[in-house]
Amino acid sequence: MAVTAEEILATYEELSEIEAQFDDVETDIIRHQYNLSKDLYVKREKIVSKIEHFWPLVFEQAPMDIDEFIQPSDSQIILGALKSIDVKRFEIDTPVEGGDPRSVSIRFEFNENEYFENKVLEKKFWWRHGKDGFVGYVSEPVDIKWKAGKDLTNGLLSLAKAAWEEEQTASKKEGKEKKELTPKQKELKEKLDAEAATGAESFFCFFGFIGERVSAEENIEALKKEAEDRKKRQAGEKVEDDDEEMKEDEDDEDWEDEEDLDIFPQGDTIAMAIADDLWPNALKYFTQAQESDDLSDDEDDEDEEGDEEEEDGDKPSKKHKACAHGCKH
Amino acid sequence: MAVTAEEILATYEELSEIEAQFDDVETDIIRHQYNLSKDLYVKREKIVSKIEHFWPLVFEQAPMDIDEFIQPSDSQIILGALKSIDVKRFEIDTPVEGGDPRSVSIRFEFNENEYFENKVLEKKFWWRHGKDGFVGYVSEPVDIKWKAGKDLTNGLLSLAKAAWEEEQTASKKEGKEKKELTPKQKELKEKLDAEAATGAESFFCFFGFIGERVSAEENIEALKKEAEDRKKRQAGEKVEDDDEEMKEDEDDEDWEDEEDLDIFPQGDTIAMAIADDLWPNALKYFTQAQESDDLSDDEDDEDEEGDEEEEDGDKPSKKHKACAHGCKH
Repeated sequence: MAVTAEEILATYEELSEIEAQFDDVETDIIRHQYNLSKDLYVKREKIVSKIEHFWPLVFEQAPMDIDEFIQPSDSQIILGALKSIDVKRFEIDTPVEGGDPRSVSIRFEFNENEYFENKVLEKKFWWRHGKDGFVGYVSEPVDIKWKAGKDLTNGLLSLAKAAWEEEQTASKKEGKEKKELTPKQKELKEKLDAEAATGAESFFCFFGFIGERVSAEENIEALKKEAEDRKKRQAGEKVEDDDEEMKEDEDDEDWEDEEDLDIFPQGDTIAMAIADDLWPNALKYFTQAQESDDLSDDEDDEDEEGDEEEEDGDKPSKKHKACAHGCKH
Repeated sequence: MAVTAEEILATYEELSEIEAQFDDVETDIIRHQYNLSKDLYVKREKIVSKIEHFWPLVFEQAPMDIDEFIQPSDSQIILGALKSIDVKRFEIDTPVEGGDPRSVSIRFEFNENEYFENKVLEKKFWWRHGKDGFVGYVSEPVDIKWKAGKDLTNGLLSLAKAAWEEEQTASKKEGKEKKELTPKQKELKEKLDAEAATGAESFFCFFGFIGERVSAEENIEALKKEAEDRKKRQAGEKVEDDDEEMKEDEDDEDWEDEEDLDIFPQGDTIAMAIADDLWPNALKYFTQAQESDDLSDDEDDEDEEGDEEEEDGDKPSKKHKACAHGCKH
């Protein structure tokens, strides 16, 4: 197959257009599914609130991508005090310019506990497009009012929040020049470096995730640019690949070592795992928790094979509906 | 919280009903998404057919749940001869009684190659409900016409197909009595036991997956029973939990060691991974393949961080749209 560079380019342009069309469908589907499921989730919460430890049991069965970040001390809070979880697609509920149905808020409700004062911890994740081509979740740190001597994040979360606020103020002042780290950012960087050595960061650092710095304004700008490019493409015009150019731009605007400053860089992955898996599949995970309870109740009766099957619970293909009644197959 | 056993049971009944309602929404969404995307997939195929090695490159980036089953010799066929993949929801395209939008057919098209005669290998997965509470994919073995001395499955696939046909005939004759293994089944069992010792089964055994024996008739029966139970539940009537009873029934009907007879028991997981991930996200995996190509082209320019980022490609949260043009960020 001898193809010219021109033909290859044309094919890639077509691919970009079809990707945009798939994205439109996905956006439509997320909105449709959310609207169809909304009332069901409210009903579900009403029912599961009658079951003791429902949400802690669900969390205990959390898939690997969440579970690997939960330390034993985190687990103690979750098992002892987590009352409920709620997930909302807030830009479907209240549309804004540049809003996306993927934007999600995750709300944890807690009972009175010995670790912190908050009854509610809520974190928002905005789905945004950056000028550099980035598409994904960004967020803002949410602080926790730890009780004396109980801060599982060892001051990191509060410092991340303070550094973020300083960054916001500095951002407005300095404009577009090359940015140096603010004093709080420097302090945060040092603390993070020191902590890295000790390992085992608390799951509650999740509330400190920021991600890439993409403001609502930049998002709107990037979306406009994408829409223009798309129109050009549809009209058969050439679209400039200006990534390199933007990359240079970027250096002028971004904070140094921005990513090193995130106390929980995997926060977007966790947000997705909760919003797209743990939350919609909570009943499945609860059933799994019951089954594994049953298994430990009569462990002697079970051979090794039974145990293996239980660990295989992540597999969504096979389910035994009746299992919600606590039976085993 | 002091709750009576009666109240607990009532709560579980409510959970079953809400689960059924969620399932209705999911079914609706799958159908809706399929119909919205259908034409786009046709367009996509038209475009990607112009790109050399598109599907082999996608397969090369396949997620772990697929990749772990691909042996080096399988890889040689896929890279050398895979022409295209197509996925259809055949029970949406042609509705039948008891049909489900999840039922999926996966069609591989191959170029002339030194391994087998087939130009097309197509495998269907029916989403069925069993009388024992099973819900999931079942299939039938699809044989491959290997060229002399080239059978990567070492005769397993053909034997699985022959044993399946014998089983079907025996099934009709024997009716409901306790079933002994047929001669071909015995042969298959022995061969499987022998092969187990050598390990490293070919990916092409995937075409031999059968799963649980749930006929179209049993599926319709089970769905009717589920619908009746649901009506009772909605009317506030008690629904008998007859799993134990059915379990005894089961013993009379099933083949001995049915599961031991499957040459690729993970076939349903692979089918889902292809239909729900590799196929819809093919453009993403293709982009990843290009990026990793670029990386190896100028490996010296890249620091370790770059490599890590590339391996992280499974993460759907962050994408750099412009990457389809082969650029790196």
